[in-house]
Amino acid sequence: MSTPTSADWLSHRSEIRVLDCTIRDGGLMNNHHFDDHVVKAVYDACVASGIDYMEIGYRASRKNIKLGEHGCWKYCQEEDIRRVVGENATALKLSIMADAGKCDYREDIPAKQESVIDLVRVACYVHQVPLALDMLKDARDKGYETTVNLMAVTTVGDCELEAALELLAPSEAQAIYVVDSFGALYPLQTRRLVQKYLQYAKAGGKEVGIHAHNNLQLAYANTIEAISLGANYIDATMAGLGRGAGNCPMELLLGLLRDPQYQLRPVLQCVAETIEPLRHELGWGFDLPYMLTGLFNQHPRAAIAYNAQPETGDIGAFFDSF
Amino acid sequence: MSTPTSADWLSHRSEIRVLDCTIRDGGLMNNHHFDDHVVKAVYDACVASGIDYMEIGYRASRKNIKLGEHGCWKYCQEEDIRRVVGENATALKLSIMADAGKCDYREDIPAKQESVIDLVRVACYVHQVPLALDMLKDARDKGYETTVNLMAVTTVGDCELEAALELLAPSEAQAIYVVDSFGALYPLQTRRLVQKYLQYAKAGGKEVGIHAHNNLQLAYANTIEAISLGANYIDATMAGLGRGAGNCPMELLLGLLRDPQYQLRPVLQCVAETIEPLRHELGWGFDLPYMLTGLFNQHPRAAIAYNAQPETGDIGAFFDSF
Repeated sequence: MSTPTSADWLSHRSEIRVLDCTIRDGGLMNNHHFDDHVVKAVYDACVASGIDYMEIGYRASRKNIKLGEHGCWKYCQEEDIRRVVGENATALKLSIMADAGKCDYREDIPAKQESVIDLVRVACYVHQVPLALDMLKDARDKGYETTVNLMAVTTVGDCELEAALELLAPSEAQAIYVVDSFGALYPLQTRRLVQKYLQYAKAGGKEVGIHAHNNLQLAYANTIEAISLGANYIDATMAGLGRGAGNCPMELLLGLLRDPQYQLRPVLQCVAETIEPLRHELGWGFDLPYMLTGLFNQHPRAAIAYNAQPETGDIGAFFDSF
Repeated sequence: MSTPTSADWLSHRSEIRVLDCTIRDGGLMNNHHFDDHVVKAVYDACVASGIDYMEIGYRASRKNIKLGEHGCWKYCQEEDIRRVVGENATALKLSIMADAGKCDYREDIPAKQESVIDLVRVACYVHQVPLALDMLKDARDKGYETTVNLMAVTTVGDCELEAALELLAPSEAQAIYVVDSFGALYPLQTRRLVQKYLQYAKAGGKEVGIHAHNNLQLAYANTIEAISLGANYIDATMAGLGRGAGNCPMELLLGLLRDPQYQLRPVLQCVAETIEPLRHELGWGFDLPYMLTGLFNQHPRAAIAYNAQPETGDIGAFFDSF
């Protein structure tokens, strides 16, 4: 593959794969309780706009679960998915995310020919890489495409990261994602990470992906930076819907990509008609508490707790708590 | 001055000057009808946080005005400013913006010793550069600091821009701003513009500034890019309050700058307690219509009209109109 030049992002690169994870990442804001019509609207928009993959939820262990505590998109059983997409006779590929340590992957993921899913995305923290490797092999052996999301990379030291990338480079994953779970990356840091990932991934014949969060209003900017350097697997969500401050907005991403494969209009309509009406209830998006967890490179849980208080909090005291 | 390195933006650079233009740019969303307590809260936060300049509004011609149509911050008469800031016995400097063609600058701007204002910022379009030069000279002759905002730079061809910069380089302005009025710049384009401005400005002993809009959620990213290259005059607003999609948020900017001169906490409190409560009424911030005017490099007026409709518009039809 040729080295991308600075002009490439204004042109287009056929290797780019756009993945919509609205329902999966957004599910972290409503315990995965999306009505079918919302999932269907996102699915239809993905199909109509030429998006490559749609991640429809997690596949999580159903052992010891409390019925009704989480919506069905936490488990993504085949019958739930088919209720929305049928046999998915479209060019759109479907993915699920399987979290290391939270998925009985050997039992819960059937052989590919029994599933409407195309891609299994394995998510892990750095200490779970050996487990992730087994999950990747399991998925590939069953016939799926696989990728790996190494989460919370801003908390991982260089030495540990390089060890992880050495292990992942020869794995079954077809792409390794730079995942800024805390929304703490500046573009300059994204640049260095993507360059490092590319070095390992390309040696293993793999692609690099980017999954950004918007705590510092930099999700899109970091995504542009990653694309300009050669990252080809790009996560985005409708209206940026995702945990906390949310993700890189799909409407911005498709506005950037010049590949005639992609159509912006269906995404605009999905955002305006289906996703924005959920904003008040779900409460994702940039705000001061999420900004502060990003700024201090921390999990958004403190901001989630701050925002869940019945009374408006004291932002000065919250700032002092870091 | 030394060439900045990529590490500089994580350190600090004493040449940086932060300018708050919340009331000035935000005034475009409410016809400059800010209550004094809002202006005072922004002023107090600027003082407490160590911000260098606060732009309190425009100084515009009062010929043929309809009384009450615009709030007093469109004119910034000395008595209005002093009602809020007294004699401004603080380290914060105050600025007004004077638009070329909209200000009777010879009469309406008194000698510096009669004014509580420190800096006169001249704003012009490229065809108004000769007028701006006269305004800059007038302001400097009267004893003020002056800078120039060359507006809507994304609509200016390279050849015209270079001619404008040649004229502005030897002018009285102490800084020349890259102004992305339409919020249409990507960081790569910001980089090229800032480099070009620096080339002319440094030859004339001047600084370069950046004034960004957030139509593509890139106001902060473009501001970071400009800072990393050596731009030292940085515009931002509380909660990003400004025309349309708004500006680079001050809370993000101060979160980035490591100079102990700046304190984030007073800005957080001003945003949470004074500015965010205005959001519903003023309606600034990123949305799909503002995104589209930015994407298509157009003045936000079409988005403003779309958002002012009594019924929710059809975003697909709006997209088709470009």
